[in-house]
Amino acid sequence: MDKFVSIQLDPSSEIPLYLQIYNGIVDLIEEGIIVRGEKLPPIRKMASFFKVNSVTVVNAYKHLEVQGYVESRVGSGTYVCYSSKKNNPDEFGTSEEVFSLSHRGHKSMFRDTARSIKFDFASASIAPDYFPVQDFKDVVNEVLDRDGGYALEYQESSGYPPLKESIMEFMKAQHGLSVPFEEIQIISGAQQGIDILAKAFLNYGDVVYVEAPTYPGAINAFRSRGAHIVEINMEEDGIDLNDLEKKLAKTPPKLFYTMPVFQNPTGNSYSLKKKQELIALATRHDFYIIEDDHVSDLYYRQKPLLLKALDDSDKVFYIKSYSKLFLPGMRLAFLWVPKFHFDKTALAKYSSDISSSGFFQRAMDLFLRKGLWTKHVMRLRKIFNDKWQKTHKALVNHMTKEIKYNLPDGGHFFWLELPKGYYSMNLYDIALKNGVSIMPGNLFFMSQKPTEGFRLSFAQISSQDIDRGIQKLSESINHLIENPYAIIQGPDDRPLL
Amino acid sequence: MDKFVSIQLDPSSEIPLYLQIYNGIVDLIEEGIIVRGEKLPPIRKMASFFKVNSVTVVNAYKHLEVQGYVESRVGSGTYVCYSSKKNNPDEFGTSEEVFSLSHRGHKSMFRDTARSIKFDFASASIAPDYFPVQDFKDVVNEVLDRDGGYALEYQESSGYPPLKESIMEFMKAQHGLSVPFEEIQIISGAQQGIDILAKAFLNYGDVVYVEAPTYPGAINAFRSRGAHIVEINMEEDGIDLNDLEKKLAKTPPKLFYTMPVFQNPTGNSYSLKKKQELIALATRHDFYIIEDDHVSDLYYRQKPLLLKALDDSDKVFYIKSYSKLFLPGMRLAFLWVPKFHFDKTALAKYSSDISSSGFFQRAMDLFLRKGLWTKHVMRLRKIFNDKWQKTHKALVNHMTKEIKYNLPDGGHFFWLELPKGYYSMNLYDIALKNGVSIMPGNLFFMSQKPTEGFRLSFAQISSQDIDRGIQKLSESINHLIENPYAIIQGPDDRPLL
Repeated sequence: MDKFVSIQLDPSSEIPLYLQIYNGIVDLIEEGIIVRGEKLPPIRKMASFFKVNSVTVVNAYKHLEVQGYVESRVGSGTYVCYSSKKNNPDEFGTSEEVFSLSHRGHKSMFRDTARSIKFDFASASIAPDYFPVQDFKDVVNEVLDRDGGYALEYQESSGYPPLKESIMEFMKAQHGLSVPFEEIQIISGAQQGIDILAKAFLNYGDVVYVEAPTYPGAINAFRSRGAHIVEINMEEDGIDLNDLEKKLAKTPPKLFYTMPVFQNPTGNSYSLKKKQELIALATRHDFYIIEDDHVSDLYYRQKPLLLKALDDSDKVFYIKSYSKLFLPGMRLAFLWVPKFHFDKTALAKYSSDISSSGFFQRAMDLFLRKGLWTKHVMRLRKIFNDKWQKTHKALVNHMTKEIKYNLPDGGHFFWLELPKGYYSMNLYDIALKNGVSIMPGNLFFMSQKPTEGFRLSFAQISSQDIDRGIQKLSESINHLIENPYAIIQGPDDRPLL
Repeated sequence: MDKFVSIQLDPSSEIPLYLQIYNGIVDLIEEGIIVRGEKLPPIRKMASFFKVNSVTVVNAYKHLEVQGYVESRVGSGTYVCYSSKKNNPDEFGTSEEVFSLSHRGHKSMFRDTARSIKFDFASASIAPDYFPVQDFKDVVNEVLDRDGGYALEYQESSGYPPLKESIMEFMKAQHGLSVPFEEIQIISGAQQGIDILAKAFLNYGDVVYVEAPTYPGAINAFRSRGAHIVEINMEEDGIDLNDLEKKLAKTPPKLFYTMPVFQNPTGNSYSLKKKQELIALATRHDFYIIEDDHVSDLYYRQKPLLLKALDDSDKVFYIKSYSKLFLPGMRLAFLWVPKFHFDKTALAKYSSDISSSGFFQRAMDLFLRKGLWTKHVMRLRKIFNDKWQKTHKALVNHMTKEIKYNLPDGGHFFWLELPKGYYSMNLYDIALKNGVSIMPGNLFFMSQKPTEGFRLSFAQISSQDIDRGIQKLSESINHLIENPYAIIQGPDDRPLL
């Protein structure tokens, strides 16, 4: 048991005991003190060593297992299976962006900090507690009982026809839009949608416009096709039209990538006027728009109007993600492709991975058909509406006048701006020490240069932690402003200023 | 019921009655006589109309449902959901190749014929009857009970660590190979493996070598990167080394794509000497090899040696598919990437679809860990060994001396050659009229020019149908040879000679 001496439990901490044990063991694994294949001590031995209830150790081991650090072998015990952390986006308690960014020089930024995070405002993924696991289980079993082995065959590449039917009904009911059956391509998540559109329509050197800031996964996909990416400033009511028209006059793009509703990372939405203007410009300058609809279901005021709803001239490729709000592990989304471009897109999908899982498509079909999706989204909307109000209230209460922030109409992001000259990358470091994580704004720009802005997400944090978390964040900001030079000198491996 | 008058049942036919009803209804749907949203007559009404047992109609409706033509609504009945057939690979009772090919001008080739196929020697997919559905169901429920919502979270991009562990053990036990943990990238099927390697390592105009004939999905993936593809002749014991060296002297490739074991479409394997020589050439000319291991588990003589086993100088990217023999609907495979190239590959994977389903990865992990995979493969090997022997025996019995064919050591393909000047594309048409489907050889070459060779797969056909099917095929061949000019004039939309 000697190895475990280094784990010091603090009963007065806000972090539950099981999590403290979990954190301690993860540290030992990460530092190579416990190695792959090694057996962990039995529950009771561990419990008496730490002087805690057995259930606490059970929970710690369980958490280690679901995070993939250990495996339990029946009748034998619990064994470590070491997970190299370098490619693990979940480890940070943050979001999918991190992996992509960690490949661009920021690996060290997120190291050895995850476990000290008490207030996670970084992650864009919804906490697993909100997943409708029992409904999913019921549906999965129903599919297997109904279709047997056929549920697990190769699926036709464009998608499982009944799911397309369900999607048509869903789009009609939710958005009043009639999606032609033949224009639906099922895909393995929104990222794949961006990737196959890039594959189908971009050649080396083609120009793509993105919002600035924007979702870095999109930048990666376009970059991998050798595209020349141009950033257009994002404002609170959508794209900066002056900036856009100036750039259009020089080099119009082939594709324009946008999240017009509750944008990632700002949370901002386009005004009706800007939506109309964007469509008009696409027609005039002959480019196509990729509308990435990641969370339009999470509206707290009025139901948002999709850009696609205004698309009279087939200029918009619409991507609807089901993973964001639902079950990321299912990897399902759909693409609405104007008919003229369907075959090209379908071939790009086919050569990417043949098809998305037919099994999941059948499960998703039942989910939509039985009204479980609507039920789930309504429940989430209620929960997130509450969190949104709490976050806003906490910002009003705790932020000083110098800190600017918006109030989005939906989604789970706020965008905050530090006073000029104070960079969110530095705030990131200070906040971490206070147990708070945020996503520094530079990560959402091509250049990744330090910026004042940063993203505050309430996707993961629990309702009751919000106020405390924002307070801690505010303290961190005050600390930054009071000691602006103290943190600029970081260790060499840190991409500070 | 008037619409159903056109369906004529033939009780003396080899096609079961339920399938005749199914076929008839599919025809009505395809021809637009029954349309989407229309309700099918109740079971009993249908049964009395056709003068068959209710169970027959139930089976027909069930089959329509699993094929996605209809959906049953609880308490309401069975409704048509029209499936545009054009992108449906399953409709032909054939394989994944068809979709990709159907995008290249052969759409019409496969139309309106699927339902007359009694002897399917075209499909490369294993029949769903062989899938271990109950084991899969047990494992899926175990995962959900064990991990709850965590099973459905975003998965780290490189894969679920315990699955990597299981793969390491599997590769050790099966092939005596030690795969480093850090060199495993989980992917969504073998096609994605090819695609992300193309993405990571090819630039526009780069040269890729493929075997001729080869798997067309690979050609698509390379082509989508703008690669210049060069074909190297395939012989019975592997690549034609003279052809290879001649081409290497001119323009060495960046990548060489191969299936060294039980190749698709020929079923041939490389000799040890050719494997060694290929590795040596890769080292000398500095190119990388993609080894696509699609069915090396299905050996009927000695266990095959992987090319990767000879790879002392990290020249081989190894792709192992689990979908081919197992559950295509799960879309799981893994890539063994030499360490030096891992980050680049991982980024290509990430920008393609973030990660493969963590849920399926957990299920696959349990499958491997509990020995269910080994059990399944051993069972399949026995079944397929029997089918392999039956196919070979039938070829010996029914084929005339003019028809050449090989005897592969494993897998589920034979490669047959018609006498010089007789093209398999024409045989395809004649065979179909006899209820037999094959894959004409031209589909596996870049040029798609007519060839004498064709692929005979026994993946789908049942053991007891093999002899009859080969006999019918032999009759078709005789017909072709006796009337070589009769079929060259096809309808305009057919890509005949």
